[in-house]
Amino acid sequence: MYVALADELSSLVKAGKLKSGDRLPSVRRLMTQRGVSATTAIAALRALEERGFAVARPQSGYFAKSAAPLALEPDASRPPSGPKNVGIGELLMQVIDASLDAQIAPLGAATADPSLFPARRMQKLASAIARRQPRVLSHYALDYSGADSLRRQLAKRYLDIGCHIPTEEILITNGCTEALNLALRTVTRAGDTVAVESPVYYVMLQTLQNLGVKALEIASHPRHGLQLAALEAGLRGKEGRRIKACLVSTNFSNPTGATMSDADKRRLVRLCELRGVALIEDDIYGDLQHSGPRPLPAKAFDESGNVMLCSSFSKTLAPGARIGWLCGGRRWRALGSQKLASSGASAVLFQEVIAELLKSGGYERHLNKLRTTFARQVQHMSSAVERHFPEDTKISQPDGGFVIWVQLARKVDVLQLFEMARNEGVNFAPGPLFSASGRYQNFLRLNCGQDFTPRLESAVRTLGELACELRRRTPK
Amino acid sequence: MYVALADELSSLVKAGKLKSGDRLPSVRRLMTQRGVSATTAIAALRALEERGFAVARPQSGYFAKSAAPLALEPDASRPPSGPKNVGIGELLMQVIDASLDAQIAPLGAATADPSLFPARRMQKLASAIARRQPRVLSHYALDYSGADSLRRQLAKRYLDIGCHIPTEEILITNGCTEALNLALRTVTRAGDTVAVESPVYYVMLQTLQNLGVKALEIASHPRHGLQLAALEAGLRGKEGRRIKACLVSTNFSNPTGATMSDADKRRLVRLCELRGVALIEDDIYGDLQHSGPRPLPAKAFDESGNVMLCSSFSKTLAPGARIGWLCGGRRWRALGSQKLASSGASAVLFQEVIAELLKSGGYERHLNKLRTTFARQVQHMSSAVERHFPEDTKISQPDGGFVIWVQLARKVDVLQLFEMARNEGVNFAPGPLFSASGRYQNFLRLNCGQDFTPRLESAVRTLGELACELRRRTPK
Repeated sequence: MYVALADELSSLVKAGKLKSGDRLPSVRRLMTQRGVSATTAIAALRALEERGFAVARPQSGYFAKSAAPLALEPDASRPPSGPKNVGIGELLMQVIDASLDAQIAPLGAATADPSLFPARRMQKLASAIARRQPRVLSHYALDYSGADSLRRQLAKRYLDIGCHIPTEEILITNGCTEALNLALRTVTRAGDTVAVESPVYYVMLQTLQNLGVKALEIASHPRHGLQLAALEAGLRGKEGRRIKACLVSTNFSNPTGATMSDADKRRLVRLCELRGVALIEDDIYGDLQHSGPRPLPAKAFDESGNVMLCSSFSKTLAPGARIGWLCGGRRWRALGSQKLASSGASAVLFQEVIAELLKSGGYERHLNKLRTTFARQVQHMSSAVERHFPEDTKISQPDGGFVIWVQLARKVDVLQLFEMARNEGVNFAPGPLFSASGRYQNFLRLNCGQDFTPRLESAVRTLGELACELRRRTPK
Repeated sequence: MYVALADELSSLVKAGKLKSGDRLPSVRRLMTQRGVSATTAIAALRALEERGFAVARPQSGYFAKSAAPLALEPDASRPPSGPKNVGIGELLMQVIDASLDAQIAPLGAATADPSLFPARRMQKLASAIARRQPRVLSHYALDYSGADSLRRQLAKRYLDIGCHIPTEEILITNGCTEALNLALRTVTRAGDTVAVESPVYYVMLQTLQNLGVKALEIASHPRHGLQLAALEAGLRGKEGRRIKACLVSTNFSNPTGATMSDADKRRLVRLCELRGVALIEDDIYGDLQHSGPRPLPAKAFDESGNVMLCSSFSKTLAPGARIGWLCGGRRWRALGSQKLASSGASAVLFQEVIAELLKSGGYERHLNKLRTTFARQVQHMSSAVERHFPEDTKISQPDGGFVIWVQLARKVDVLQLFEMARNEGVNFAPGPLFSASGRYQNFLRLNCGQDFTPRLESAVRTLGELACELRRRTPK
């Protein structure tokens, strides 16, 4: 019985009558309209989800999902085997400068629409706290570990997720970027090598360049993340001894959206420990799953304290407050000394504000809404790319976060597309930004953090037309 | 006529009837009490100032000054001639941990009393700005250079001081510490050497240690600062080629309070330019002169863009906001890239608040009060040390800032004093913190940023008694 209903709904999605992101009929509605039992209606929706035609969102019901077969995902990466000196500075500056230009469509930097964040609530809390304790402004910020209130709330929240982290090991930082920098500086010296997934978040390449550290790019799958066999081969290779750290975004990795399985996370933690390589985990998108439970960080499997977990509230709650953190594991004292001498303590006021939001449950309520919004925006953006880009375009299917990774035909030069698009007032992050070895010449990352307005639809259409034009010029 | 009056007032100060920091009779009062003309009264007070028995403060009149002859200032430093690997971590952590303990008298870290800062005013401005532009919280902070409003106000203020700095060369940072870090990272690599004045601000030693950079300590005078002949000798020495930067606090240096003359600043700038050595200037205390005009930074003499000027509002306006800046000179683009990859943009809200305070003139008005307060607190602390410490103690006589540098008899072990004082609930910064080579074993720095309450008087008395006890145990 439920199979027939699931088939019928599937065909509506396949035929495009139900578009990606559209809400599917509720259980109650299926019961009245189709005369089926609640059990049948629920089973049909679950089957639809299993087939990949629907996504469940807590408290919101089921939504249609474009039924892109797995073949349309980008290919697993195959980076070269040697470590590389990094040099992406000029291109990076161009992408960021364009992101600062309000005239240019915001598909470049991974930024979300300001209206998605509780700025008023935070402003009111900040006023109340500053009135109550004017010392948050006038007291010299000496405590380089950060506000105890926030550190305790973070420890509590990790415990809820399933991850025991002692409060004293948590260091508040100026965003996730500073956390990653402190971790890298504590375990590397100029001339060392760091293993990174490929493609990798571009700011980290700039950081490695500034540290004089080489990047060894490790093959990665656009859905399952870092490939452990490739990492093992790298560690066993002739440059393996120079690898002092492995830097991985385990959940909804930027740019692919890949998430490692728990089994892979456990193996990764063990492998790094065994080889004496520090594991630096970037979990900045971990709270932004599109449905289901929050995935575990690899830190949850860390028994020896070798994992340094980095994250922040910049993508989830307060993009302008620049508050991140670092769970330092067994290196927490050395990390504290790095922090003290790198930037001193972080400003306290918004640490207190965020601690209150965590304590009151306001953060979780906000996240529930935000997740649904990002899921919808990612669906809208993916559908638009499907509609407007050349037929052989491949698109990542992230289960969280708010970027998609798009693969064009092999010989399309995305830097040429970047130039052409800038002239048309459209920005995006070109693939080569995400590689130390100039790979991903035919890839691009699109930001889905903004409301999918007609302006964005039009920007994607422009991009697609330019990509089609380049595709035509390119011999097969 | 005025000489007789000056003599009489001098003897009152010498005899201790007018104590350091006491207000002297005003011109009007001298006219009525002593029946002298205004010209005579003014001339007498000026003579008193010239003799070193009085300090003039704008809008406040003249104050008595303890007439310590110059011989009682600490000796000029004579650090060893080779570069040193730095290692002060554990002692530094102890001093900071004690500074966080409210039970311990706050003579350690250089922190000012929270009541001296306009926290209410800033909180109100912050609320108004956040209400008007909620985007300061919810907009992703992408502009790693900082808020334009603040950068423009800083450029304008430098112009008022007599220093032309283009707005685009100014980068907002997380405190002066981050500014100094960015500057150091941009011009050094592990294994390089940096020339620093001796004694030097301890956090910089920790920073150099973290960077794997050696410190070459340059002789310094407690009143006139870095000795250029010593720097020249260092640059010409066999390790001279490894010196990539010179790090100097030109105005009211921490810990000595020394200020370089304009002539010396000009020579320093030229010398560094000539030798291809970057000049990193720490001017964090520059706005805190006790009287007279604000001293120029060395940056004012920089024609080639080789000077990187670092400062912050942490000592002058908003100790909890962690807002500093870096005037990068010709390296401003490279510094921006360092900032982007080190911690991303800085939080915007308090940048906007401070920009408004600068624009409205509120900052200058606040500074005028603050300078008088610090001048008085430094006087009180110095007098108390004179009263309670062994007779052969030498004390710096800073013309700005809020710390004093105290030299005990040669063989008194200040680390022993530190242990004993901690047991009595008194903290201070022991001399060896300020050296890469373990010097200043008989020096200490005292914080004068707090109101000189009976509790502080009692803490200084305790310190003095302990110092006397150690002095007695020590053979001459």
